[in-house]
Amino acid sequence: MIILGVDPGLTRCGVGVIEAGAHRRLSFIHVDVVRSSPDMSQDLRLLAIYNGLVAKIERFAPDAVSIERVFAQSNRNTVLGTAQAAGLAMLAAAQRTIPVALHTPTEAKLAITGNGQAQKVQVERMVTRILGLNTMPTPADAADALALAICHALRPAGALQGGEREQHLTAAQRQWAQAAQHATRRRGADRGM
Amino acid sequence: MIILGVDPGLTRCGVGVIEAGAHRRLSFIHVDVVRSSPDMSQDLRLLAIYNGLVAKIERFAPDAVSIERVFAQSNRNTVLGTAQAAGLAMLAAAQRTIPVALHTPTEAKLAITGNGQAQKVQVERMVTRILGLNTMPTPADAADALALAICHALRPAGALQGGEREQHLTAAQRQWAQAAQHATRRRGADRGM
Repeated sequence: MIILGVDPGLTRCGVGVIEAGAHRRLSFIHVDVVRSSPDMSQDLRLLAIYNGLVAKIERFAPDAVSIERVFAQSNRNTVLGTAQAAGLAMLAAAQRTIPVALHTPTEAKLAITGNGQAQKVQVERMVTRILGLNTMPTPADAADALALAICHALRPAGALQGGEREQHLTAAQRQWAQAAQHATRRRGADRGM
Repeated sequence: MIILGVDPGLTRCGVGVIEAGAHRRLSFIHVDVVRSSPDMSQDLRLLAIYNGLVAKIERFAPDAVSIERVFAQSNRNTVLGTAQAAGLAMLAAAQRTIPVALHTPTEAKLAITGNGQAQKVQVERMVTRILGLNTMPTPADAADALALAICHALRPAGALQGGEREQHLTAAQRQWAQAAQHATRRRGADRGM
């Protein structure tokens, strides 16, 4: 199963691609950043990001696209551009009937390091280790996109459905499931989004 | 010149189309709302809005698309979906090399009623009068999309460039130009958007 992770942004939009094989074995395929220049008008910036994302999706033909969930409480200076870039990634996937998953930064950190509040460098180190790489993936900030793809691959079964399966989860998985449910409740509060 | 106005939204996205002829004569062409159901997943909602907007743009082949500018300070419950719908409208126009203009609600109210703080019903009445309609356009909340199209048609020359032309403007046009410049400064502050 090929998973394409997207760390959305209008100036820099991270893209990370992994393969999830049997026994949760994960392999690195690709990492890159799609860019648009702040000197361009906003419509042309969105077009550049969209075209860049479409090119990646068509090249790697992912089975799922995992995108960071954007919250209105995020950095006011960039939140709208970030939300728009995330929207373009969702559109590009939906146009190709590729399933889309949204994961919060906390979910991604928890899935990868076991700590939802992990530092950026911890996440980068674990991404490097999980994918069996000799060096940290570059550009460094695109590691977030790989983290989103890994998070989707490692998500505990039933995490988003809740219910009986939870009693069979490990402590880390339960913590993960609670974070996912918390995010679902926040999403419910974000009506119209 | 055909102008297509967009009042962005994820649940209801208003679309209004007018023709701007000689001597600033404006004629009504079309008004409608593109919808997506809150029961659908977000990626499919964005796809529905995008496809609806593309159908309108291809049907009316506008020379310009005028979209309401979204601010991060807006209603937190809906601002991200609104920003994403605005982003899709920009993308659909940019893909067809149609120029995009962003106008604030204050600019639209001021251009249409002479008062940037006008009530919704005042705007609807003036839209009806300016377009020479016998009854208010329905659905009523799509009048905002027509207002954005009219705002773009009536924008004073040089309003966004500032400079010498301003001294020849009427009081209302000067007020409009100031609102536009204020918006430009806010846009400048919204780096990354």
